[in-house]
Amino acid sequence: MSNMGHTGGFTLPGEAGYEELTLRLAKKWGADVIRDSDGTKLSPAILDAGYDIYATLCIIRDHNEWARSHPDTQQQVFLISSPVIATEDVVVIPLMDRYFGDQFSVNASVDALPYWQVYDRTAGKLVSSDRWAYYPDAQAVRVRGVIPWHRYTVSFLCYRVWEEINMYNHTTNHWTSEHLMQLDPRHQSVQEYLLHWLEGWLKNHEAVDVVRFTSLFYNFAFLWGCDSRNRYLFSDWASYDNTVSPLALRQFEKRMGYALTAEDFVNKGNFQATHWPPTNAKRDYMAFTHDFVVAFGKQLVDLTHRYGKKAFVFYDDSWVGMEPYGPRFQEIGFDGLIKCVFSGFEARLCAHVPVPTHELRLHPYLFPVGLSGAPTFQSGGNPTADAKKYWQQVRRALLRAPIDRIGLGGYLHLTEGFPDFQAYMAELAEEFRLIRGLHEGGEPYVLPIHVAVLHVWGKLRSWSLSGHFHETDKHELIHINEALSGLPVKVSFINFEDVKNGALQDVQVVVSAGAGGSAWSGGEAWADPQAVAVLTKWVHEGGAFIGVNEPSACPGTDTYLRMAHVLGVDLDAGEKVCHGRWAFDVQPLEGIALENAGLTRKENLYLTDGKARVLAQEKGVPTFTVNGFGKGKGIYFTSFQTNPKSNHQFLKLLLFAAGCAPLQPYLSDNPYVECAYYPAQNTLAAVSMSGETQTANIAAPQGIVKVQLEPFGFIHQELV
Amino acid sequence: MSNMGHTGGFTLPGEAGYEELTLRLAKKWGADVIRDSDGTKLSPAILDAGYDIYATLCIIRDHNEWARSHPDTQQQVFLISSPVIATEDVVVIPLMDRYFGDQFSVNASVDALPYWQVYDRTAGKLVSSDRWAYYPDAQAVRVRGVIPWHRYTVSFLCYRVWEEINMYNHTTNHWTSEHLMQLDPRHQSVQEYLLHWLEGWLKNHEAVDVVRFTSLFYNFAFLWGCDSRNRYLFSDWASYDNTVSPLALRQFEKRMGYALTAEDFVNKGNFQATHWPPTNAKRDYMAFTHDFVVAFGKQLVDLTHRYGKKAFVFYDDSWVGMEPYGPRFQEIGFDGLIKCVFSGFEARLCAHVPVPTHELRLHPYLFPVGLSGAPTFQSGGNPTADAKKYWQQVRRALLRAPIDRIGLGGYLHLTEGFPDFQAYMAELAEEFRLIRGLHEGGEPYVLPIHVAVLHVWGKLRSWSLSGHFHETDKHELIHINEALSGLPVKVSFINFEDVKNGALQDVQVVVSAGAGGSAWSGGEAWADPQAVAVLTKWVHEGGAFIGVNEPSACPGTDTYLRMAHVLGVDLDAGEKVCHGRWAFDVQPLEGIALENAGLTRKENLYLTDGKARVLAQEKGVPTFTVNGFGKGKGIYFTSFQTNPKSNHQFLKLLLFAAGCAPLQPYLSDNPYVECAYYPAQNTLAAVSMSGETQTANIAAPQGIVKVQLEPFGFIHQELV
Repeated sequence: MSNMGHTGGFTLPGEAGYEELTLRLAKKWGADVIRDSDGTKLSPAILDAGYDIYATLCIIRDHNEWARSHPDTQQQVFLISSPVIATEDVVVIPLMDRYFGDQFSVNASVDALPYWQVYDRTAGKLVSSDRWAYYPDAQAVRVRGVIPWHRYTVSFLCYRVWEEINMYNHTTNHWTSEHLMQLDPRHQSVQEYLLHWLEGWLKNHEAVDVVRFTSLFYNFAFLWGCDSRNRYLFSDWASYDNTVSPLALRQFEKRMGYALTAEDFVNKGNFQATHWPPTNAKRDYMAFTHDFVVAFGKQLVDLTHRYGKKAFVFYDDSWVGMEPYGPRFQEIGFDGLIKCVFSGFEARLCAHVPVPTHELRLHPYLFPVGLSGAPTFQSGGNPTADAKKYWQQVRRALLRAPIDRIGLGGYLHLTEGFPDFQAYMAELAEEFRLIRGLHEGGEPYVLPIHVAVLHVWGKLRSWSLSGHFHETDKHELIHINEALSGLPVKVSFINFEDVKNGALQDVQVVVSAGAGGSAWSGGEAWADPQAVAVLTKWVHEGGAFIGVNEPSACPGTDTYLRMAHVLGVDLDAGEKVCHGRWAFDVQPLEGIALENAGLTRKENLYLTDGKARVLAQEKGVPTFTVNGFGKGKGIYFTSFQTNPKSNHQFLKLLLFAAGCAPLQPYLSDNPYVECAYYPAQNTLAAVSMSGETQTANIAAPQGIVKVQLEPFGFIHQELV
Repeated sequence: MSNMGHTGGFTLPGEAGYEELTLRLAKKWGADVIRDSDGTKLSPAILDAGYDIYATLCIIRDHNEWARSHPDTQQQVFLISSPVIATEDVVVIPLMDRYFGDQFSVNASVDALPYWQVYDRTAGKLVSSDRWAYYPDAQAVRVRGVIPWHRYTVSFLCYRVWEEINMYNHTTNHWTSEHLMQLDPRHQSVQEYLLHWLEGWLKNHEAVDVVRFTSLFYNFAFLWGCDSRNRYLFSDWASYDNTVSPLALRQFEKRMGYALTAEDFVNKGNFQATHWPPTNAKRDYMAFTHDFVVAFGKQLVDLTHRYGKKAFVFYDDSWVGMEPYGPRFQEIGFDGLIKCVFSGFEARLCAHVPVPTHELRLHPYLFPVGLSGAPTFQSGGNPTADAKKYWQQVRRALLRAPIDRIGLGGYLHLTEGFPDFQAYMAELAEEFRLIRGLHEGGEPYVLPIHVAVLHVWGKLRSWSLSGHFHETDKHELIHINEALSGLPVKVSFINFEDVKNGALQDVQVVVSAGAGGSAWSGGEAWADPQAVAVLTKWVHEGGAFIGVNEPSACPGTDTYLRMAHVLGVDLDAGEKVCHGRWAFDVQPLEGIALENAGLTRKENLYLTDGKARVLAQEKGVPTFTVNGFGKGKGIYFTSFQTNPKSNHQFLKLLLFAAGCAPLQPYLSDNPYVECAYYPAQNTLAAVSMSGETQTANIAAPQGIVKVQLEPFGFIHQELV
């Protein structure tokens, strides 16, 4: 896999039956690897064409025969019934009235039933198990001795009898094949079966160079409803709901010395969303699950290695418990990680994972429709425009951090009707190889600014929140992360323990961004006076704390924002409705307006001591402020939307925050042009985020470099 | 004080030096009473002109000489310093840096200092008193052994050395007279002095028929800042902050068996706003204060009676502790209550107080400027337009409940430049006497609908929240109360104990309206499962629960709104960010659109089980819903603004809620025309809220009555 020239670093999805197309496009796009996909196969003509071969394996899926004969080894989940209001002293609670029957099958086995729970939600009290019984024919629980007019729920275990990605593909792409089941490898019998099965598979696939695990065992939570008006009842790309089983609960209790209950999972019907701070029990359970996934994952990888093949992991579906920034991820021994990407933050997420090979699976996927159901490779679709859009989003991050490979997935034949797409992918692949080459010899120049993004997950959830950009775009932090992914600053992700353990030592800017109570804003973690004191001291001594939306929000003290004293602003949850508000004048900072960041008015925002400088306001309420605090500053804005202009403004704000002069080397003066300088090659590269021709002035020690870029263009030049 | 004819029921503010004007306007406006005002006096020519005379007395004020010789009997308040961040292990905290020095004087006496508190706000911990000392010269507290980078505050007692109304008048009207001090009658010495003083006064004012107490002892909290950018640091018209003193604290502890602390008052700097649910300690303290105010108030009233005079109370300034719906108010023995009014709800507040005489002091006050500082009786002012506006707001409430008298206050000579105002007041007074006459013989007809407004204060804060409309207009409930004040339904105000004690028995509609956590929404009161169960049963059996904004909001269970099961909607505080949302179609109810109520989009609102009917939406989020629940319903809307159209729509909604047919007798079909029917006189009256001529059809058993009203007109006619 050479890093130079017009070939290499490209993984093409081949397709049996389209051998000529496969090999023609492999050549056109400079592919060095051909892969299969979910729904396609490779034929001997492809396997023998001299390319390295990836084979996609979803290890826990596609064992329906074995699963049917061992139904109790299928994966499970805790569900919670709709609440039912008792109108007398007996109440009957149907379990499945809102759930998609094809996905779930109630598990009322002797193993499972002791974990079921009935709750009086009105009183917030568990109902003793001797007061209720399950009636399988009615799929309902009857509870006696209840309090009339209280609401009751049942939390219960279900088998998940249709693997979620398969379920999604069936419904989205109108597949009609057999529903695929999924096995839970926590069972010793499943482990033995899968190791045996994998060994057989490895023996039978001599042509395969890389086993592309997609991913390991447990899918993100994707709980479907029976009503088409509300199909996706709960979707969380980082949740642990799908890892549970009576066996896991027993093993957890044995190891940790305490038992988890259904309530630890269903959490009053909220479940344990990743956007919300984890309970201690959830943290323990995550570590417990991580240990298992690492241990059995390592067995699979070791076996793969024994057959002379490499093991890559596709980090997008069933990756729960093997987070690539988890403490034990490296022990699994993967040779590469493949990340599907729409956005820059996903490229950065991939780039820094401790594996030898980093690969991006680009969008659009070669499917008739995209994730949102809009047409892609069919009438009405414009896959070239899609590819350009996503590439432009991803590319700026590639200037900042090296990626080894890119590729596509899906049905290659769908590109036949789109010759412009075929042509564009050749250009794109060539551009990728040029950018990749720039990183050879050393890292690109960064400003003397280290930005630490602070939230409760810290490093574990570096760059990503939970899922793709469009699934999390209501959270300000994903916009911040996306902006940062292409900016010439050092970025790290820290939690509150890191803060207390000295992580701020070489940090110039801390960012806290999110809704109050969320994992991103920090929630109860801010109730720790030590963390607040460390941050306070750090700002006082020169640091800059940037808060967005409800940063450091935590009720319980005199301010809602625990960093209000640093920010000079606070939010009133109603307690200060009788307090006066400071009058103020708006005094913008030159050149840092955040005017494209979609600043929204927060009715309940107020200046604490009137000393913060108001940079912007809406209808009498500040939306953007800066507050001097000792030698440092607190900077606040109400919201943030990533786009070329606001990313550019954010970079200027980081310079201001870190006390740097606005004029710095290797920065473009045009928001639509971003650039990077590679000292080892003395080369400057620039990309355009605009559909128009753009020019930019870039300061360099040698003087101003003037560049001109074609629409969405890329240039690089050695400095002289 | 006759109820008929062209004279009577009108109190005119006389002014010495303007005798001719006083007597001319007294005749023109049909006055039967002449009063003095703050800043004016009555001369013998006025006193002897045959009118009843009110004399205004602010009993605790205007005793500067005595106060100067007994400075420790002045009224006090707990203040809290600005928080100061410790940068080492000693911190110095200035006390008064944000407060208005003319209003406060630090009380560091041996009596007071033990009640001071130093708090570590970062850790939320009280600092032991042996670690700090007060330095009077610096007006600062020095604390040693503190934790660097924590924030510290001092809570301390201050004398209030400038009576607040006098302070307000000085600054608003540029008065230059001596600042008036105020005495705290909790001191035995003050009681003796005031009784003696009052007796002397009563002896010397033989011409006075009614002593107009304004009001009794304790002003609402009005804490001023030293910075003109933020003058009114804290303003709460129903707060108890100004009643405190070391003496009160000692008496409280002796009586209740436990001690209050500074923190019970300053509450982390939030103080105890009336819009927020009271703590148990605050409830106890209110009862303790009420007992005192009633007991000493009764002594003053009894003394007044002994001199053959009546005692009226002006319910607007220093009324804290003598709430007219308080349990012991009647014991004071007032002969009348005078309420200053801008709005209908204030007229209703006055009308139902258990006193013989109910009087309204209309606006505008005869001052150069109004409450907001805008010109009234000076160049640029339009007092006639102001008077019309307020009268039109008040008048609809007068159709519903009888008021005995109206009047004005201030400097009568200011009306000299405004002959149109003089003419309009004559019309207004005549209209008032006509409306008053309609109530003779019996109550007006009401629809078979009893609306109970539910909040934590219940009856105690009937109709009002805390202050005037414009001071509380961010709270939905004041808009609801204002709408209700003129609607033909029975209205009561209940709390959660009332709910549990059977108050819903004859109620058709319960309204809960307010921001989450507020006293109006209910806050922690909703954590009581019994109250929720009683309401649930009541709706199930046919009641209608109307919720506005964040009704029944209380974190801790599976829903944020404790009545979500009834409303069919809930609000997501972030816990359900990964949950799907129900798709819906909008299905309006005919004729009930709330389109003028200013419905706002609440981003985090969602349908719980998808069964609620969505009546209106904005950008994909429901703003107005109805949910069938048993035989009853839950009705939700996001916000409410009172105005003729939305009041009219609200009435239709009440009919729908109560299961009444839309066509009912004695209702106008024109939102700008409201009417009332007086069965005892078989008379229909109607008022116009419009500046244009309006016609309306009013259903009566005899058939449709067509009426036509002049701009802002009033008509009444016997039905034939």
